[in-house]
Amino acid sequence: MSTDLFVINNVWMMVSIFLVFIMHLGFATLESGLARSKNTVNILFKNSMIPPIGLLAYALWGFSLMYPGADFAGKLFGFAGFGIPLPEGGETSAYNAGYTFWTDFLFQGMFAATAATIVSGAVAERIKVSSFMIFSLLFVGICYPVVGMWKWGGGFLNTLATPFYDFAGSTIVHSVGGWGALAGILLLGPRIGKFVNGKIKPIPGHSIPLATIGVFILWLGWFGFNGGSVLSAAPGAVSRVLVMTSLAAAAGAVGGCFMSYIMFKTGDLTMVLNGILAGLVGITAGADQMGVVDSVLIGLISGAIVVLGVVMFDKLRLDDPVGALSVHLLCGVWGTLAVGIFGKLAGPAQLLSQLVGVGAVGGFSFVFALAVWFVLKVTMGIRVSEQEEVEGLDIHEHKMHAYPDINAPGYEISMPEKEEVLVAPVPGRAPVTA
Amino acid sequence: MSTDLFVINNVWMMVSIFLVFIMHLGFATLESGLARSKNTVNILFKNSMIPPIGLLAYALWGFSLMYPGADFAGKLFGFAGFGIPLPEGGETSAYNAGYTFWTDFLFQGMFAATAATIVSGAVAERIKVSSFMIFSLLFVGICYPVVGMWKWGGGFLNTLATPFYDFAGSTIVHSVGGWGALAGILLLGPRIGKFVNGKIKPIPGHSIPLATIGVFILWLGWFGFNGGSVLSAAPGAVSRVLVMTSLAAAAGAVGGCFMSYIMFKTGDLTMVLNGILAGLVGITAGADQMGVVDSVLIGLISGAIVVLGVVMFDKLRLDDPVGALSVHLLCGVWGTLAVGIFGKLAGPAQLLSQLVGVGAVGGFSFVFALAVWFVLKVTMGIRVSEQEEVEGLDIHEHKMHAYPDINAPGYEISMPEKEEVLVAPVPGRAPVTA
Amino acid sequence: MSTDLFVINNVWMMVSIFLVFIMHLGFATLESGLARSKNTVNILFKNSMIPPIGLLAYALWGFSLMYPGADFAGKLFGFAGFGIPLPEGGETSAYNAGYTFWTDFLFQGMFAATAATIVSGAVAERIKVSSFMIFSLLFVGICYPVVGMWKWGGGFLNTLATPFYDFAGSTIVHSVGGWGALAGILLLGPRIGKFVNGKIKPIPGHSIPLATIGVFILWLGWFGFNGGSVLSAAPGAVSRVLVMTSLAAAAGAVGGCFMSYIMFKTGDLTMVLNGILAGLVGITAGADQMGVVDSVLIGLISGAIVVLGVVMFDKLRLDDPVGALSVHLLCGVWGTLAVGIFGKLAGPAQLLSQLVGVGAVGGFSFVFALAVWFVLKVTMGIRVSEQEEVEGLDIHEHKMHAYPDINAPGYEISMPEKEEVLVAPVPGRAPVTA
Repeated sequence: MSTDLFVINNVWMMVSIFLVFIMHLGFATLESGLARSKNTVNILFKNSMIPPIGLLAYALWGFSLMYPGADFAGKLFGFAGFGIPLPEGGETSAYNAGYTFWTDFLFQGMFAATAATIVSGAVAERIKVSSFMIFSLLFVGICYPVVGMWKWGGGFLNTLATPFYDFAGSTIVHSVGGWGALAGILLLGPRIGKFVNGKIKPIPGHSIPLATIGVFILWLGWFGFNGGSVLSAAPGAVSRVLVMTSLAAAAGAVGGCFMSYIMFKTGDLTMVLNGILAGLVGITAGADQMGVVDSVLIGLISGAIVVLGVVMFDKLRLDDPVGALSVHLLCGVWGTLAVGIFGKLAGPAQLLSQLVGVGAVGGFSFVFALAVWFVLKVTMGIRVSEQEEVEGLDIHEHKMHAYPDINAPGYEISMPEKEEVLVAPVPGRAPVTA
Repeated sequence: MSTDLFVINNVWMMVSIFLVFIMHLGFATLESGLARSKNTVNILFKNSMIPPIGLLAYALWGFSLMYPGADFAGKLFGFAGFGIPLPEGGETSAYNAGYTFWTDFLFQGMFAATAATIVSGAVAERIKVSSFMIFSLLFVGICYPVVGMWKWGGGFLNTLATPFYDFAGSTIVHSVGGWGALAGILLLGPRIGKFVNGKIKPIPGHSIPLATIGVFILWLGWFGFNGGSVLSAAPGAVSRVLVMTSLAAAAGAVGGCFMSYIMFKTGDLTMVLNGILAGLVGITAGADQMGVVDSVLIGLISGAIVVLGVVMFDKLRLDDPVGALSVHLLCGVWGTLAVGIFGKLAGPAQLLSQLVGVGAVGGFSFVFALAVWFVLKVTMGIRVSEQEEVEGLDIHEHKMHAYPDINAPGYEISMPEKEEVLVAPVPGRAPVTA
Repeated sequence: MSTDLFVINNVWMMVSIFLVFIMHLGFATLESGLARSKNTVNILFKNSMIPPIGLLAYALWGFSLMYPGADFAGKLFGFAGFGIPLPEGGETSAYNAGYTFWTDFLFQGMFAATAATIVSGAVAERIKVSSFMIFSLLFVGICYPVVGMWKWGGGFLNTLATPFYDFAGSTIVHSVGGWGALAGILLLGPRIGKFVNGKIKPIPGHSIPLATIGVFILWLGWFGFNGGSVLSAAPGAVSRVLVMTSLAAAAGAVGGCFMSYIMFKTGDLTMVLNGILAGLVGITAGADQMGVVDSVLIGLISGAIVVLGVVMFDKLRLDDPVGALSVHLLCGVWGTLAVGIFGKLAGPAQLLSQLVGVGAVGGFSFVFALAVWFVLKVTMGIRVSEQEEVEGLDIHEHKMHAYPDINAPGYEISMPEKEEVLVAPVPGRAPVTA
């Protein structure tokens, strides 16, 4: 391989890092847009702290846990030691033809934080911020690298007779986040006012523009998430992945739009947006294996799944403010199974391996998350008080308003004391407790 | 050519794809920011559906219509068949020295949707969403590829004695969108309240931050729009295009600022923002042909044009909520003619060819759009009811508020029924109909 | 060097240009989010005009002032003449192995405007827009290129026995902006209502989502700011810089979070956000010199500095609405000194040179800014009237509201006259003057 090719590959991987990084802004805006303004600071706080905590944990031990080296091939667990010391030749193509050691670490580190970010939205509007930060640290620092090692680190899922296949993480990233979210939702319970007297009450998000910005940024980021997972700039392979990713996203939008029209008799923008994400999650496991028709079908079905999922989880009384379970868990599983149904790898043996991978990763992630949430619940608690929840997490957990000019007008004269905010009739807003 | 160069070129083109893609977010935020909050979901819905619909239509037949192959050189129309099957060697430099087949498709597909997005803003706040989606499908799927083929697909404008020149689409993308917008505005009529008793009433957009975000994202995206139109990573050519693009944008801001100061005695931010876009549209036809002074002049004039255009269209009673006619139609035409006036190609023969191209593309696009809008108008209708328009398209067409905490406070207790929203005095907002 | 390598390097530098460009959107959203809604248009106007003015001034004379050529090596001042004529071989690797002349100009031009943008936030909510624009032009057009020449243009700081070191501009960009901000704050005085009867009143920003978007975009942009400062795509060097930059940002978030918890007993999101920026500013001077532990320590300390700085400047009655002094001035200085303390260059001689550089650049920038602000103050004035400040700069300086639906509901019927806006009790908002 020419030296130049190594430089090109590394540039491509660095671009992919930037794109995966900016997905964290996508999640932050999507999740805060789909929650109420009284909980906006709280969500942004969580989503601003997750990438830093995730990166630091990944540097301290996560990277070594996920990629422990060839000695642990086929194993359940491995660890190469603390820290990220530069290996000999780590800045040259001796390390890898596609990227340097540093690029490798940063690309994988940006991925790692994604799993916790997915959970953030699902438990929003009622979770204690301290408990969430501890959960995130353990989830990013232990759960994700362990199951990631099973496949991408050369572990047992990679050495099955027919190896489990997950190109860029429908299972390893998205469904892992989804399982963590499901465990949290089960132990937290629904938000006050969501399920009242047996009826499901919609609680719309406070800013559809923020949510829309989030989805466009996530689509953009997915070009790096999937395109970078080729692990080199190989022109045919990468550009094909970009096309299949885009077609699945486009078809997801159409699928979400049609299914929401069938279910709700309206073109529901949040379902179009979630449909785009659903298509992206769905294609992620096999973006390098699919053809044009495969990708469109996977996207269409993902878009339909997301609408049905939102309705189903509501019926199951599982309160997921942003639809993370439908997008990341259901479509993560669907996309993984789709590798056994469509594309170059389709076949019963592959489908079986996909089921094994989904089950193993899902089982471990769900039990891990459930255990962590449970221990947090019985020790420090995971849910804010009823008063906090009704009045908003922002003012209680963070002593701030997201939009003080609107949430607390008149603050220019004097910042209202906490008590005042809670009891005074704020001009322009009906008191929530009235 | 070395294999490595092919890999580099393709990386560059993929980066350009990302940049053109994110322009759709730029349009979405710009257009929704410049409209009222009661129509925000509607605009975001349209702009979220256009890239998916555009991409799918381009995959199904649009790409084959725009690039039908050498058999149709010099022709008015060509078609290479449905779908996007990978041609032999399509993933290697045998296809093109600058990019793979997949990269080619995706870059062109991202361009295609732009034309419809331009229309979206101009017809905002009164268009029926169903009619708009049908128009968009036909405009992206037929009108744009046909006129695109005339030049970029090797058609008759490319084989004139002095070939028509349009580097990245001042005419083929921007003026096409502008003509579609003009046709729509003519058949739709102005928004209620815009022209009252012979007076022009300004209807300011609801969020200047959203609009500003949009313009910065569009400038960013234009680096790919123009930079990618070099169709390779050739260092001198691409970097020169980036500089000329930036200088024209900068000069457009200054031109818009000065002209708005002359006209309105204030530095009008929306005119600065539209001035930036005007400069970008103006330089697009000849970004590879211009020098530093040319680019600054083209930008300055574009910035002035946009201010005069907004005033002129108001006087003509053509109601364009976002200034799309001034930016994309006027500056698209101006930029195309500028190729015959400034830069390396300047000269009477070129100017004549530019006029021919502007006329041919404009004539076809305008008539096509007028015909589609007309058929839609007499069949399903293109304008919402007066009640819908006054109360907002969001709640009627989409059953949602963009900002429920503000638009409909108190929703936490129970989602208001449609009737309630319309008649109840919403706290914090004067009832519109009162 | 192979031709291909030149093409790759230039692609990388162009990507860096895009990233530095988008930092201007980051500053615009951060600064407007941290100010009140009544001054939002004003901030966005300033931040939309700075990149155009900066680029044009840099093209007219700034670039030649900053990079006057080898004849001025070791000097205090140099000038290569007006304009940016393409030098012979300027589009090939004869100009530079890493980039073309055009790429060079645009990368440096995008940097230049940053210094003025930093000032914008610090003087927000009371500065006259006309005076600010004149200041910006002089600051970007003269002050920044002159001090930049001292180091990056080969001037006297670069030819010290132990040359001053500033990899990507902790001193030359960030502290320069900080010194300009300090001078402005001193001559402007605090905002009305900030310091009342000896008490410090918090004036929270109007949109935490906008501010958060700004910080994520700035982090993204810093990948180009620091990564591009390698001036080639050298895989080891660039990817290492990206990792150290990210780790410092992450540690800055943690440092800001912990220190705000110690000081205010709450995890303060604005301190997390400013902590991220602090870490980024802190690592910028030595991003290519630091190891993993160095970078984390520099970031942690930066995050702590920013919290202490905000408290300190408040106690000093220096009113800085966005914390620019703490982020850019304090951490700019800290990061520059850190090059003498941590990493490959650490040592007393280097630390002394760092002090010399900080002092020389700071002294010149502060005196320059103070002189410009002073002349502006005694001639045209730099501060808006008390009425303007209380009622908002938007409606007075720009005759616009940022959010008309909220700031001035009812505008659909008729745009309120200026007088009406000021005296009428606006539904939903307590009149500010009541």
